[in-house]
Amino acid sequence: MTITSFHPPRRTLMGPGPSDVNPRITEALSRPTIGHLDPEFIRMMDELKTLIQYAFKTQNRLTLPISAPGSAGMEACFANLVEEGDKVIVCINGVFGGRMKENVERFGGVPVVVESEWGRAVDPVKVEEALTEHPDAAILAFVHAETSTGALSDAETLCRLAKGHDCLTIVDTVTSLGGCELNIDQWGIDAVYSGSQKCLSCVPGLSPVSFSDAAIAKINGRKSKVKSWFLDMSLIMGYWGGEGKRAYHHTAPVNQLYALHEALCILQEEGLENAWERHALHHRALTAGLAAIGLEMLVPEKERLVQLNAVVIPEGVDDAAVRSQLLNAYNLEIGAGLGAFAGKVWRIGLMGYAASKSNVLSCLSALEAALLKQGYSFKAGESIKAASAIYA
Amino acid sequence: MTITSFHPPRRTLMGPGPSDVNPRITEALSRPTIGHLDPEFIRMMDELKTLIQYAFKTQNRLTLPISAPGSAGMEACFANLVEEGDKVIVCINGVFGGRMKENVERFGGVPVVVESEWGRAVDPVKVEEALTEHPDAAILAFVHAETSTGALSDAETLCRLAKGHDCLTIVDTVTSLGGCELNIDQWGIDAVYSGSQKCLSCVPGLSPVSFSDAAIAKINGRKSKVKSWFLDMSLIMGYWGGEGKRAYHHTAPVNQLYALHEALCILQEEGLENAWERHALHHRALTAGLAAIGLEMLVPEKERLVQLNAVVIPEGVDDAAVRSQLLNAYNLEIGAGLGAFAGKVWRIGLMGYAASKSNVLSCLSALEAALLKQGYSFKAGESIKAASAIYA
Repeated sequence: MTITSFHPPRRTLMGPGPSDVNPRITEALSRPTIGHLDPEFIRMMDELKTLIQYAFKTQNRLTLPISAPGSAGMEACFANLVEEGDKVIVCINGVFGGRMKENVERFGGVPVVVESEWGRAVDPVKVEEALTEHPDAAILAFVHAETSTGALSDAETLCRLAKGHDCLTIVDTVTSLGGCELNIDQWGIDAVYSGSQKCLSCVPGLSPVSFSDAAIAKINGRKSKVKSWFLDMSLIMGYWGGEGKRAYHHTAPVNQLYALHEALCILQEEGLENAWERHALHHRALTAGLAAIGLEMLVPEKERLVQLNAVVIPEGVDDAAVRSQLLNAYNLEIGAGLGAFAGKVWRIGLMGYAASKSNVLSCLSALEAALLKQGYSFKAGESIKAASAIYA
Repeated sequence: MTITSFHPPRRTLMGPGPSDVNPRITEALSRPTIGHLDPEFIRMMDELKTLIQYAFKTQNRLTLPISAPGSAGMEACFANLVEEGDKVIVCINGVFGGRMKENVERFGGVPVVVESEWGRAVDPVKVEEALTEHPDAAILAFVHAETSTGALSDAETLCRLAKGHDCLTIVDTVTSLGGCELNIDQWGIDAVYSGSQKCLSCVPGLSPVSFSDAAIAKINGRKSKVKSWFLDMSLIMGYWGGEGKRAYHHTAPVNQLYALHEALCILQEEGLENAWERHALHHRALTAGLAAIGLEMLVPEKERLVQLNAVVIPEGVDDAAVRSQLLNAYNLEIGAGLGAFAGKVWRIGLMGYAASKSNVLSCLSALEAALLKQGYSFKAGESIKAASAIYA
C-alpha cells in the first residue's frame, strides 16, 4: 500500500454545489486551529451568530451553524420539532421534498403529502386545501429552492397560509441563502436550514439553522427527548446560547467555522441585496446565451431559480458525454439531473463566487464546443454574443 | 455591525483535543474544492477508506468517515445497532460512558449500566457479572480511552467477554485511535467510532467509523428504519460502498476529507506502531517531569492513557488561574477537569503532532512558572531535568 498526498485538480464548479470557493475562504480554513473552548474562539462564535442572523434576515436568538452538512441541518429541524404522532404537511416538488417526508416518518410524525409537478413551484392552492382538510396539522414543510429541479417556491405566501392555520413552518433554504431573496422574520419562517457550500461559496460541511421563538416553545414543550443527542437543540443551545457559561456539547469543527465566518464577512461586505442582484444578473446573461443557441429551460420563467439553472438536454445529445468533455477538457463541472430528471436536464449553478461574468462566458463557450461535437445544430458564437449583450 | 476576518492566535494545543495540527494537514485542507461526485474525489475516497482500515487494523468493508464530529460517530453506531427494546450493557467510568447511555435511551434501547470508578479502567469482573445476569443483552458498549479521566480500559478482554455471551460490541476509540494499541479485527470489535482531532492531529469535524460483518447483519435485519436519515448506514453504504455506482446521499465535507487523507498518510509514513511508541515515550517524559515536582497522576499507572494525562491539582492551587496564565502568557492550552473532576484535575494531552519533545519541555517549564506564581512549593527546574533524562 503506497498512498500519497492527494492533490485535487483545479475545477470551475458550476454544478448544484459545492460551488466555487472564494480563495479568501480556503485561506481562512487553513488558519491555526485553536481550542473550541478558547475565549478567542467563543468571541468568533458570537460574531458568526450575528453574521448568520444577517444572512437570514432574522433576529432569532437560536441561530447557529450545525456542525455537519445540510442534510443534518434538515434533520435538526425535523428531529426537534416533530414529535410522535405530529401531523406534518410536506410539499414535494423534487428530491428534497421527498427527503423531508422521510425525516417526518423517521421521527414518528404523520406526513400529509402535497405533490406539485417537478420543475414547478409548490402550488399554494393545493397547500391551502391540505391545511383546510387537516386542521390538526402541526407543521408545514417545504423547500424554498429545489436544488434538484431549479424551481423557486413562494415562501412568503406559503408561510402566511401556514400561520393562518396555526401551523409552524420548516423551510429548506439550502440553495436559496445568499442567492435570492430570503427574509426569515418578515415571512415568519419558524425553522430553517441551509448549507455552507451553495451561494455562500464556503466549503461543504456546515448547515446554518435558525429557530423562531414559537419553534423554541414547541421544542421546550416536548413530551419526549429528541431522538438524537448530537442534534438536540436544547443541548446545542447551551453551547451556542451566549447566555452565561458555555456548556461543552461536542467538539466544534473549528477550521470550518473560520471558513464560514469569512464567507459571511464577504457577503456582508458585498451586501446581501447586492449579492441577490449579482446572482440575478448572471442568470439573465446565462439564460440569454442558452436561448440564443436554442436550449430550453425546464422551469417556467416566473418560478425559476437564478442560482440553479435546469437546462433541457436537446434530443440526440449524450448527457454523460457532454459533462465528461466539460470536466476533462475544460475542468468545468456542471450537474446531472436528479431522480426523474436524470439524463433529461443539466443543472448549471451560478452560486456565490461562481456567479461571475467570466464563469458565464467560459461555460457558454465550453458548452458550445461540446454541443458542436455532438452534432447539435446551432449558430456558433451566438450564446456568447447574447450573454455579452446583457452585460453591455 | 462591522465584523471583520477572524485571525486566531497561534496556540500549542495540549488539552483533550483538538490537538496541534500538523501544518501539512492545514495545507491539505486549503486545496481547491472539487465536486463530491468528481471521479478524482471518488478515487480519493477509496484511498481514504484503505487508510482508515490501516489505522483501525481492520479489513471491515464498512469503514469510512462520518461527515461530522465524534459525537455523530457515536450516534451512528447506536442509531444503527440499537433497536426498540434492545438491552445494551453500558459501562460508565467517565463522561463519555454516560453519553453512551443517553444514546441507548434515545434510540429506544434498555440500558443496563455497569459503573466503574471514575479515573479507573472499566472493571471486567463487573462486566462479566452483568453479561451473566442479562443473557438477553444484545450489545456491550464501552469507552476504550476515557477522555474525561485519562483511563484506558482493556478492550481486548471486554470484547472477549462480550463474544462469550453472544453480544455485539460498540467501542468509543475517539482518543485511542493512533495514540495507543487498537486492533479492531484481532480484538473482535463490532462497531467503533473515533475522531479526527485527537491522535490523528487532523482538524475537528470528522468521525472515522467501522462496522464488522456481524454488525452489518444486525443493521440489515432491522425491523424498523434507523431514526436518522443522515446517519443511516444502509444509505451511507451506497455512497461509500465502492460496489458499482455511487448513490448520492449527502454532500461530503470535501476539504475536511482532504485533511483526514493527509493525516492518515502521515500516520502511515510514520508507521502505526511507531506512532504508539512515540506517544508512550513522551508520556514517560511528561510524567517523570510532573513527578519530579511532586504532582500526582489521577489514574493508576497500569490503567493510564499515554496520550491524555490527568494530573491532580495540588491543594491551594487555583485551577482557572493556572490555565489562564498558560493560555495568555504561553499560548499553551491544557484541559480542565470534566464532570466530577472539574477543578480537581488538569488534562494534559500528548496527541498526534502535539506528542513531541519540544511540547513536553515547554509545557513543563510553563507549568513550573505558573505553579511558582501560585506559591506551590517545589524545586524549580527539576521537572525539565527529569523529563530530559528520559530523552537522554
